[in-house]
Amino acid sequence: MEPTAEHRYVITLSCPDTTGIVARIAGFLADAGGWIVEAGYHSDPGTGWFFTRQVVRADSLPFGPDQLRERFAEVAAELGGETTWTVTDTREPKRIVLLVSEEAHCMHDILGRVATGELPVRLAAVIGNHDRLGPIVRAHGVPFHHVPFPAPGGGDPEARAAAKAQAFADVDDLVSRHDPHAVVLARFMQILPPELCRAWAGRAINIHHSFLPSFVGARPYHQAYARGVKLIGATCHYVTPELDAGPIIEQDVIRVDHSDTAADMVRRGRDIERLVLARGLRWHLEDRVLVHGNKTVVFP
Amino acid sequence: MEPTAEHRYVITLSCPDTTGIVARIAGFLADAGGWIVEAGYHSDPGTGWFFTRQVVRADSLPFGPDQLRERFAEVAAELGGETTWTVTDTREPKRIVLLVSEEAHCMHDILGRVATGELPVRLAAVIGNHDRLGPIVRAHGVPFHHVPFPAPGGGDPEARAAAKAQAFADVDDLVSRHDPHAVVLARFMQILPPELCRAWAGRAINIHHSFLPSFVGARPYHQAYARGVKLIGATCHYVTPELDAGPIIEQDVIRVDHSDTAADMVRRGRDIERLVLARGLRWHLEDRVLVHGNKTVVFP
Amino acid sequence: MEPTAEHRYVITLSCPDTTGIVARIAGFLADAGGWIVEAGYHSDPGTGWFFTRQVVRADSLPFGPDQLRERFAEVAAELGGETTWTVTDTREPKRIVLLVSEEAHCMHDILGRVATGELPVRLAAVIGNHDRLGPIVRAHGVPFHHVPFPAPGGGDPEARAAAKAQAFADVDDLVSRHDPHAVVLARFMQILPPELCRAWAGRAINIHHSFLPSFVGARPYHQAYARGVKLIGATCHYVTPELDAGPIIEQDVIRVDHSDTAADMVRRGRDIERLVLARGLRWHLEDRVLVHGNKTVVFP
Amino acid sequence: MEPTAEHRYVITLSCPDTTGIVARIAGFLADAGGWIVEAGYHSDPGTGWFFTRQVVRADSLPFGPDQLRERFAEVAAELGGETTWTVTDTREPKRIVLLVSEEAHCMHDILGRVATGELPVRLAAVIGNHDRLGPIVRAHGVPFHHVPFPAPGGGDPEARAAAKAQAFADVDDLVSRHDPHAVVLARFMQILPPELCRAWAGRAINIHHSFLPSFVGARPYHQAYARGVKLIGATCHYVTPELDAGPIIEQDVIRVDHSDTAADMVRRGRDIERLVLARGLRWHLEDRVLVHGNKTVVFP
Repeated sequence: MEPTAEHRYVITLSCPDTTGIVARIAGFLADAGGWIVEAGYHSDPGTGWFFTRQVVRADSLPFGPDQLRERFAEVAAELGGETTWTVTDTREPKRIVLLVSEEAHCMHDILGRVATGELPVRLAAVIGNHDRLGPIVRAHGVPFHHVPFPAPGGGDPEARAAAKAQAFADVDDLVSRHDPHAVVLARFMQILPPELCRAWAGRAINIHHSFLPSFVGARPYHQAYARGVKLIGATCHYVTPELDAGPIIEQDVIRVDHSDTAADMVRRGRDIERLVLARGLRWHLEDRVLVHGNKTVVFP
Repeated sequence: MEPTAEHRYVITLSCPDTTGIVARIAGFLADAGGWIVEAGYHSDPGTGWFFTRQVVRADSLPFGPDQLRERFAEVAAELGGETTWTVTDTREPKRIVLLVSEEAHCMHDILGRVATGELPVRLAAVIGNHDRLGPIVRAHGVPFHHVPFPAPGGGDPEARAAAKAQAFADVDDLVSRHDPHAVVLARFMQILPPELCRAWAGRAINIHHSFLPSFVGARPYHQAYARGVKLIGATCHYVTPELDAGPIIEQDVIRVDHSDTAADMVRRGRDIERLVLARGLRWHLEDRVLVHGNKTVVFP
Repeated sequence: MEPTAEHRYVITLSCPDTTGIVARIAGFLADAGGWIVEAGYHSDPGTGWFFTRQVVRADSLPFGPDQLRERFAEVAAELGGETTWTVTDTREPKRIVLLVSEEAHCMHDILGRVATGELPVRLAAVIGNHDRLGPIVRAHGVPFHHVPFPAPGGGDPEARAAAKAQAFADVDDLVSRHDPHAVVLARFMQILPPELCRAWAGRAINIHHSFLPSFVGARPYHQAYARGVKLIGATCHYVTPELDAGPIIEQDVIRVDHSDTAADMVRRGRDIERLVLARGLRWHLEDRVLVHGNKTVVFP
Repeated sequence: MEPTAEHRYVITLSCPDTTGIVARIAGFLADAGGWIVEAGYHSDPGTGWFFTRQVVRADSLPFGPDQLRERFAEVAAELGGETTWTVTDTREPKRIVLLVSEEAHCMHDILGRVATGELPVRLAAVIGNHDRLGPIVRAHGVPFHHVPFPAPGGGDPEARAAAKAQAFADVDDLVSRHDPHAVVLARFMQILPPELCRAWAGRAINIHHSFLPSFVGARPYHQAYARGVKLIGATCHYVTPELDAGPIIEQDVIRVDHSDTAADMVRRGRDIERLVLARGLRWHLEDRVLVHGNKTVVFP
């Protein structure tokens, strides 16, 4: 397939800041005839680190993605051993897997966005801990896998722990089959075990229903109601072993007032959860998010 | 079925403003033992008109909805001949019909909201001028009717006009079967003929993809792009015979910048169209919107 | 002076919720011919408490504010011993005192709002712990008092504590002379001693430069920067002895991103501090804020 | 004076887009040892035009601003005859002149921002068509010039036109003395004559009290009230001979509802006028705004 004007390569790079980085990268691209259609740069005075994201028209380069990667690797190598970089090809479609629970509003939202072509991704599978959502997911042409999790409380704690471990092993197995670019915890309501956090590092994306760092943990809207805040929010972040403490990709809020009960906040907060997750996920899939330590650089 | 704490009557009333209206209504309710759980009042200095919406616990009243209506009619009559009022019973479910076109993002959003129980309504039917959306709509357990509309341009104008008139007659027919509380033009992309505007007055709800009164008519995002605005918006309004000029229920905006092409605005604007329509529709269905002239009073 | 259409009485009332409260109050006003031009009601299901604020045209009542208070006291008494209420007369101008430090942006904002007649208040005095701001304050026709506070750190701790206690005693003294309706900590940067928190309970209003409960205490923007949040905020709240934990009147946020240093956040946050304080203060002065426990009911 | 880390040069450039522009500029800077601390790029697919803004640490370059300009001129020349560019030195302070009328809220806001060092500018003078504001302006150490304008309506039209022309000539004269980087119409309420629009092209900044293109012209809040919109806004734009039609720098909105009278909108809109003007002005002064045709590219 010939490259077209819409066919692009997306380059991201992070390295210790110094003079001449932009010139080195831009020089490399210019020498190859590369036409940069989008470029973001960030020089971070706090960490002394440099970040860039560049989008190049594929039809402006005399070589394909593999050779671009090979040649760019040499450029990156000159920028020091700590440099990290990626080159992605917009013709290689991204895949995501959704983990859902009974709170299905984020899943419905993503199904709709994929159906309208609004989110540039193939929805490889939805994994749910209830089977009620299967028919609608399948009507969208997306495989649905039911992995039951033990209900909280009650019964033998050891048996429950074993059942939960098995459920996570099943989830891991299903996810692995698709090797997705993102594992989206779309209100999954289960805390990932540390080994999955590590296995999916930089790919597991969670939507937390509060404006973090306020209201970490369970029932954040009820915490917000109790405190009497005038705005409620949602946070899209990468999952790390420490609960609700990973690098934040996106946040937003909406106003509430005294007339909103905790149940109203639960309902109204969904609007902001959907939006924040959709934005954060899009940015991740378009390679707009560069992680450094516990913070993100987002070129929106 | 016995009334419960969750079972409520919603009273709305508009009349020329004068002293004692609140006392008259509140006195009537108090005499009957009515427990008001929500109340909104608006005394409009511009028009000299009074508006109220009150929500009463059904289990606090010694009579049912029909008798409440009968008795309230007497109270309303005392407030003058121009008074308009409604009493609705939250146990009588509301029905809506959706009219959609190829731009299906608002439809997907409403399907999701109905599926999660977030929007308190029965989705009676979806009518689309393309049949592509049928399977997903039906997977939600909702009837889908395909009514083809002639494509714009090309062919014999008279034949096209006749085909269009027939299509609208079919739509009217299908809508009438359900007698819905709202006919939602969820990016329907067809201008309603005046007779349908009149037949559905106060029930036909449109989402226009601009912050009205800016960018009336076709391709508002392209108009916005050409003008170089820094925010784009959406407007939910009642349909009247004058295009995009009906009473506004809700509006909102999001930031854009020079890096957004018209196509980006189209995509990004969907987020605000979905939200604005969902909020406006909810308020309409919960009897929170009182229309007076070409303006609305909304008790959110 | 005769009452005019602009002359109003503002009634607020909180009491345990029960049937008939609205009827009792509205009936009282209607019997006296009172014309209600603004009314807010809130029935709180969580606490079982009722709140109202009503604005009555003074020229519609056959008596003045003192007699209104006398008569309304009887109505309130019928609503039970826990009832609290106020009746204020819009002709009795409100007074505020500002406490400021070196961070003078909120003070400048309030001076400007008072100068344009935008904030309905008499600025009785500004008390600053630096004297640099005196000339501008006085150019606005407002008395400025310089009360120096000991610099943090260094020197003999006991002497510093004594100097600080003396400074607060001076502030208390100056404030008392004006008996203000609000003592505004316009980025005062000193923690009020518990006895002043108690003496000014319900009148001391603080602007905290974070979206509480995130980032309590010192240098909240630096905390926000370290956490990598995508929004920063400000909170206007009543001061209580527990730091940054009093009832919240108003909050708002603005977006930040990776390119904002902590210093940028300090600068950009000022925009939201000014707005949030101005809104919260206005609502307080217009008797729109009813406090119950650690939460507020705001009728905006 | 030696350059410091805080001392910077700001380069802006617009030219027809082609391959290699970034490389050419970055290469030039890298060869000189220039350390880029901030960089924005925009490649506009609609116009085929390229825009950039770059900030370089002065202490990283072996030459001063004049030599930088000389050398950069050669680079720019290579990019074609349509190229426009600027190099500014953050040590050369910017000057502004404010034109004000009776609506002084924007003026007070800017005075406060300059007083706190928040806006990086020297306020060279305030010119007012009423003298009431003189004392406060002068307390800020800023010269105030009173230039009376004839009141609208009444009297001999020819005499009024002559008086107005004279007033504008006086304003022009006063402005010229300061050769400011921006002439800010801070709610000046007079329509600039075409010759002043031309003389101050790219420097005259207006704040219009609506979300343009809605509500062009007089009394926009009253127009907004009549239409029943749910948001009101403000627009900061460059002044051109066509009224309220110049390139938009910044816009924002706030919610209103049925309870807001036109007078409430006037008052509440001030909050957004202040903010929008302050942001737009800052961006202009920091060379963040590049104008192309009737649109702006803003690197915030």
